[in-house]
Amino acid sequence: MYAFSRSVNSMHSEDIKVLMKLSSGKSLISFAGGMPNNDLFPIHEMDEIYNGLTDDLKKLCFQYGPTTGYPPLIASLEKFLNNKGLPAATNKILVTTGSLQAISIITQEFVNEGDVILTENPCFVGAISIFETYGAEMVSIPIDKNGIDIERLKETLAKLDKKPKFLYVTPTFHNPAGINYTEERKRKLMEVLSGTGIVLIEDDAYGDLYFDGKDSKWIRPMKSYKNYDVDIIYTGSFSKILGPGFRLGYMLASPEIHEKAESIKQALDACTSNFMQILANEFLSKGYLEPYLTFLRNEYKERKQMMQDSLTAHMPSEIQWNEPRGGFYIWLKLPLTMKSSDVFNACLKKGVVFVTGRTFDPHNVKDDRIRLSFSNMPKDDIDPGVRILAEAIRQYL
Amino acid sequence: MYAFSRSVNSMHSEDIKVLMKLSSGKSLISFAGGMPNNDLFPIHEMDEIYNGLTDDLKKLCFQYGPTTGYPPLIASLEKFLNNKGLPAATNKILVTTGSLQAISIITQEFVNEGDVILTENPCFVGAISIFETYGAEMVSIPIDKNGIDIERLKETLAKLDKKPKFLYVTPTFHNPAGINYTEERKRKLMEVLSGTGIVLIEDDAYGDLYFDGKDSKWIRPMKSYKNYDVDIIYTGSFSKILGPGFRLGYMLASPEIHEKAESIKQALDACTSNFMQILANEFLSKGYLEPYLTFLRNEYKERKQMMQDSLTAHMPSEIQWNEPRGGFYIWLKLPLTMKSSDVFNACLKKGVVFVTGRTFDPHNVKDDRIRLSFSNMPKDDIDPGVRILAEAIRQYL
Repeated sequence: MYAFSRSVNSMHSEDIKVLMKLSSGKSLISFAGGMPNNDLFPIHEMDEIYNGLTDDLKKLCFQYGPTTGYPPLIASLEKFLNNKGLPAATNKILVTTGSLQAISIITQEFVNEGDVILTENPCFVGAISIFETYGAEMVSIPIDKNGIDIERLKETLAKLDKKPKFLYVTPTFHNPAGINYTEERKRKLMEVLSGTGIVLIEDDAYGDLYFDGKDSKWIRPMKSYKNYDVDIIYTGSFSKILGPGFRLGYMLASPEIHEKAESIKQALDACTSNFMQILANEFLSKGYLEPYLTFLRNEYKERKQMMQDSLTAHMPSEIQWNEPRGGFYIWLKLPLTMKSSDVFNACLKKGVVFVTGRTFDPHNVKDDRIRLSFSNMPKDDIDPGVRILAEAIRQYL
Repeated sequence: MYAFSRSVNSMHSEDIKVLMKLSSGKSLISFAGGMPNNDLFPIHEMDEIYNGLTDDLKKLCFQYGPTTGYPPLIASLEKFLNNKGLPAATNKILVTTGSLQAISIITQEFVNEGDVILTENPCFVGAISIFETYGAEMVSIPIDKNGIDIERLKETLAKLDKKPKFLYVTPTFHNPAGINYTEERKRKLMEVLSGTGIVLIEDDAYGDLYFDGKDSKWIRPMKSYKNYDVDIIYTGSFSKILGPGFRLGYMLASPEIHEKAESIKQALDACTSNFMQILANEFLSKGYLEPYLTFLRNEYKERKQMMQDSLTAHMPSEIQWNEPRGGFYIWLKLPLTMKSSDVFNACLKKGVVFVTGRTFDPHNVKDDRIRLSFSNMPKDDIDPGVRILAEAIRQYL
């Protein structure tokens, strides 16, 4: 049941601290962390919310809640998800301790050791770590700039002698690749999965962080599509739209999948913190979210543009990258002769870190990519950091 | 990997709500919930703490933290556990999302489907639910008023053809039995386990809630004992000394056990809420805990005495019970001809609920007990509730 998982350096401040020690006291420019910068959190709005709570609500903050979630938060989420076209009325919401817990619960629900599951390649490292821990055999399908490679998916399905339990995808502002699935690609994916009985896990942690409001239409989740015979579990998170420290996520799934998931959730931590759920619910229900999202979208768009401009100015012509339309990440492609891990070591000596491509390969091999996050460092660090990175890359050309 | 678990009615407000509906709109007197009454939570102290946080700490509340826990909270816990004589310097603390998550992590670390584990009988239902979910084969050992039955434990160990992975016990203010292990019994238990390689899980969720300060010496945890060759994992919780809504617990274990536990924790929810850890740490480090514990001990002692007096006044002579020295529970023994489930149904019609004995039997059979909690209802409900319960019991005599 238990297997050692790879370390998810990309996520944890502790690891960042270790990196800081390694870089021997120099201050570090980190393009590594997939988290918001501390200065972007809505602490003043939360002060207002906390101090506006009635004593009865404060008492409820301290108490156990239902395993499925704090009912007013579930109601707020139903409204929020309905507005995205998601079937919140016919499906059920389970509030989880971060959306990572949702992926963990789903894995525990569907996977026995040795079962096959499908992932994208590259894939969110937190999910890889869960799939490894529960002994899933990962089979990965490459993605291109428009989404998962449909032909490779078909070939893989034809070759496999076991039916995969599920396919895990992050179609919007992909982590680490920064791409979006086009609507066409999403429909093709649904056609391929239709009737196969393979569950689709649609991870939408970044969907609200588009840079251009016009995109909000076509990036809508597959879970909102009609007329396909695919069981989709949709997962969402408060980590990118409020703060990871709340450890709040949710999954929207059919009543059958929900019922077993609730039972597993009960055996994991009984229920998610009422305190965190009550504060988050006030944030949603009192209308704090939309203005905060407007602020975040502008902020991340500006950061993206700064990194984009800096890359254009300093990177050698051999290096390619995407221009993301939302989210946190730019995914650099190195020449095949160059290893991301080598560039990492060279950069670390000069006080710049990022996450190596190999980290996101479910098979821990492919290493010709670099994930740069523009969400977490002070803006003034972007250009100096990119210069150092470009210099390190030049050494290996 | 996944098995349906029994419902843990005792813990969840949602189930309590269902019960309230069943009792058709009448107001309910609940001796069921193993949680503090909402009016006992330190909400004003928390107001002071929250509003005293610096902006930098507030920002940190919103952020990811290390998987093992927020370092200043770990430091505060080390001090807290050292004061109890626990080996916090040579062992390691993992902060968990409630102590239930600690039990879940330990189970995932040690148990493969079909492995044997040992429990007490009766046993904390949350733990039973975890052991069932992860497919453990539970073998239970009866307890008496002084602790686990040593002879039965020895007989069981002699008979088993597989070595049990661990023994799970709650030696202090037992849930549901309300008893304490005597020091003699604890030493005998350690002698029996010594050198067997069977891990001991010592769940100490209630240890700070003694009614008499003199007891604080001899109820000290086995994890603090020296000179036994037993690997003990000690688990603790903030649920009874601050509030279950924080979902904060911890485990103290050897570095080897800790390392694997950290890796599993990472695959469950990445880290426990920084927000909740920072507030809890301020509560500990600024000295709010001790005065609050003094208040709680007096409050629960008074409630225990009210229930005790009421039981003495109203219960038929055939009914026996313990007088607890701390914690939340009185454990009634019915005549063998009477079923706790029948009494439950009779009481429910009259608006009184409790948790049936069978709930705490790992084999879900033994049903001659009733668990009454005195922690959760308004004090004025205690005597009327006990009268109704006594009347229901008389019907079955």
